[in-house]
Amino acid sequence: MKKHNFSAGPCILPEEVLQKASEAIINFNNDNLSLIEISHRSQPFVDVIENARSLVLELLGLQNKGYHALFLQGGASTQFLMTAYNLLNKKAAYLNTGTWSTKAIKEAKLFGELIEVASSKDKNFNYIPKNYEIPSDADYFHCTSNNTIYGTQMMEFPETEVPLVCDMSSDIFSRQLDFSKFDLIYAGAQKNMGPAGTTLVVVKEDILGKVERQIPSMLNYQVFIDKDSMFNTPPVFAVYTSMLTLEWLKDLGGIEFIEKVNNQKAALLYDEIDRNPLFKGVAAKEDRSKMNATFTLINPELQTQFDTMWKEANINGLSGHRSVGGYRASMYNALTLYSVQALVDVMKELERKA
Amino acid sequence: MKKHNFSAGPCILPEEVLQKASEAIINFNNDNLSLIEISHRSQPFVDVIENARSLVLELLGLQNKGYHALFLQGGASTQFLMTAYNLLNKKAAYLNTGTWSTKAIKEAKLFGELIEVASSKDKNFNYIPKNYEIPSDADYFHCTSNNTIYGTQMMEFPETEVPLVCDMSSDIFSRQLDFSKFDLIYAGAQKNMGPAGTTLVVVKEDILGKVERQIPSMLNYQVFIDKDSMFNTPPVFAVYTSMLTLEWLKDLGGIEFIEKVNNQKAALLYDEIDRNPLFKGVAAKEDRSKMNATFTLINPELQTQFDTMWKEANINGLSGHRSVGGYRASMYNALTLYSVQALVDVMKELERKA
Repeated sequence: MKKHNFSAGPCILPEEVLQKASEAIINFNNDNLSLIEISHRSQPFVDVIENARSLVLELLGLQNKGYHALFLQGGASTQFLMTAYNLLNKKAAYLNTGTWSTKAIKEAKLFGELIEVASSKDKNFNYIPKNYEIPSDADYFHCTSNNTIYGTQMMEFPETEVPLVCDMSSDIFSRQLDFSKFDLIYAGAQKNMGPAGTTLVVVKEDILGKVERQIPSMLNYQVFIDKDSMFNTPPVFAVYTSMLTLEWLKDLGGIEFIEKVNNQKAALLYDEIDRNPLFKGVAAKEDRSKMNATFTLINPELQTQFDTMWKEANINGLSGHRSVGGYRASMYNALTLYSVQALVDVMKELERKA
Repeated sequence: MKKHNFSAGPCILPEEVLQKASEAIINFNNDNLSLIEISHRSQPFVDVIENARSLVLELLGLQNKGYHALFLQGGASTQFLMTAYNLLNKKAAYLNTGTWSTKAIKEAKLFGELIEVASSKDKNFNYIPKNYEIPSDADYFHCTSNNTIYGTQMMEFPETEVPLVCDMSSDIFSRQLDFSKFDLIYAGAQKNMGPAGTTLVVVKEDILGKVERQIPSMLNYQVFIDKDSMFNTPPVFAVYTSMLTLEWLKDLGGIEFIEKVNNQKAALLYDEIDRNPLFKGVAAKEDRSKMNATFTLINPELQTQFDTMWKEANINGLSGHRSVGGYRASMYNALTLYSVQALVDVMKELERKA
């Protein structure tokens, strides 16, 4: 029986996507060749990457607005340095909401002055800072929309004149936003888009070309724009599986549809966390992530019992990150409401038994 | 019916590897979860990457000699800049044997002085230069062991006191060499090791730490050594499929065994190219690649007939690269002698019919 997979990432993908990806490894496009043993310059694969790039812009509502969708490699960690390499002339402003923001700041510091406009480190990143000032002479402002580890999510984004750069690795395609407010969005695929191994970059071309330094080809967004995201051999399997997931989302009804489901899943779990006297939430209520719910047992002595119960209920990946402890239920797009109900049932059962 | 796949890369992989990779997408490790939806920090995946790293060193005969095997992202194109970022203080020496060497030189130039010790550009890279001098004060010497596009291969490597860096993307694991002569070897996976999406780096740790500049984490070999190749989420599927291919090679008898098969395949095809009056080879005979055989029709008017014939014979990927023209038969480890015989049969049939 398939598990209820609450893994934080790499994480659950739609069953039909896994099925099609598995089949393509044996016979892709009915050509009697595997997806992973054909030239990336062959028409069948060019069609795949072009379809994937087009679906990204369509789902985000960014068609014909000067944006390009690129499938790169190296994860968000590579974007920490690429954003600075391509955009940071003198000074950039960063909002620090957790481990990934902190890492982004560390890498960008090699390329210029960094202004940390605000940080929630004082409370182990359990909230999103508000009411900060973004210097108007910053080359860009960088934020992390969802903090997987701490279970916080930005509900609003600042109005600013400077280019807006956002790491959306763990909540892209999960909720409706005015994506045209952002100038550069990046996301490791392995949450809501596909398997580990490719990184989505959506960039507005007019913010590029403004730094003095020479940029190595593989770190240069413009090089990939000019080559339709195929400057070199792309990560074929990860791009194909991402395309399948994007098609799945479009067929379901796009972000508008999935957001409703995500809201229902989050409400079901957070209502139980708040109702059940054995549990408490970690993140500030107004900043609670709809993707990753962090919570703890009020009485730690119940841990062994609870852990045994959820594992017996066929639940996977519920342990919290070591820097927070407790539990983390990641409810990405492909997780069903049925799986959340299974978890809630276990929480209720613990209450009855404990 | 499965095709005879002579694609230059991404290219043919062993059937049993494709089968196992396809199964793991549905159910990995009998855990009722897909390989691509589990945490990369879970023990089953940690075992995969550790096994893959260990197999690399074992197959290359580099165990316990100060080397580390890393599975990175970004292809050889990222290594063009990473090698320079990590190793180039003042001056480096490069041998230019084709498109990939030329690109490596271009990227490294951003980081210091480049000495091109020799080039075969004068004859469209159809031979390997010999008898060049490597400056003894160079930080390293860089070469490309096999030139996929032109069909040339280095049969010998220079004796030098400076660290030896080699792009072995298209012939690693295909022939026995004293790999301990090299200080850094890199290879995009998508020829003899696995699917596109990961890049193997084998580095001798003692050559690192000698440059002044600060290196971004994702470009720093030492960071990946310190984190057992898992500084960030690795390209899970590409690493797993590489592990399967390395296991396949070990079970066959390792490089010693596959080299014999590769020699037989190359001899069969080159003998026919030399014997058949309709064809001629492109590369200088003494530098002919055992991986990629480049050849042309002496009478170009036979092209349509020949193209129809090999396609009817279920052969795939035989067209030459646009910068050379003609034909290119890539005979990587997973290609059988049977497939080469199928091609040779078509060449003989053309001779009879033409």
